[in-house]
Amino acid sequence: MSKHNVTIEYCKMCRWMMRASWMAQELLITFDEELDEVTLRQGTGGIYNVYVNDKLIFSRKEQGRFPEITELKQLVRDHIAPDKSLGHSDKG
Amino acid sequence: MSKHNVTIEYCKMCRWMMRASWMAQELLITFDEELDEVTLRQGTGGIYNVYVNDKLIFSRKEQGRFPEITELKQLVRDHIAPDKSLGHSDKG
Repeated sequence: MSKHNVTIEYCKMCRWMMRASWMAQELLITFDEELDEVTLRQGTGGIYNVYVNDKLIFSRKEQGRFPEITELKQLVRDHIAPDKSLGHSDKG
Repeated sequence: MSKHNVTIEYCKMCRWMMRASWMAQELLITFDEELDEVTLRQGTGGIYNVYVNDKLIFSRKEQGRFPEITELKQLVRDHIAPDKSLGHSDKG
């Protein structure tokens, strides 16, 4: 099975490292079979971008907000494991 | 200035993700100027390897133990910022 990677690029000046690290851990737990790695990348200028296999799937600047964690899991799932059920994260 | 990356490869079956994630956060805070990114890579078989720019700098299998966090910071510092003072992490 091909493995996948996620990168979370966060603004270190904004002190979003903890948020990015928390989301990284959530993804590593939920996609422990599908994800090979999650990268935390330091950025500046208010950036909070999430990439799956180098493809941008969420941009705080485009959306004007952070991703919800359930939303983020759904987005990642849609790209790397479209048939995977997310349980609670698919409800509500 | 050239940027650097660290990868922490941990055994997910051993449930070492939290430990790896904690060490990742410590490195991102300490080396916020020098590190571009830290990657958490899922592995198996009791692995706990740390790489700087793809060079192995710590192996649990070789050492028979986990790295101490101050030791790990010193190892990373020696590879990416040899002139950087680590304050408390250089003492004791």
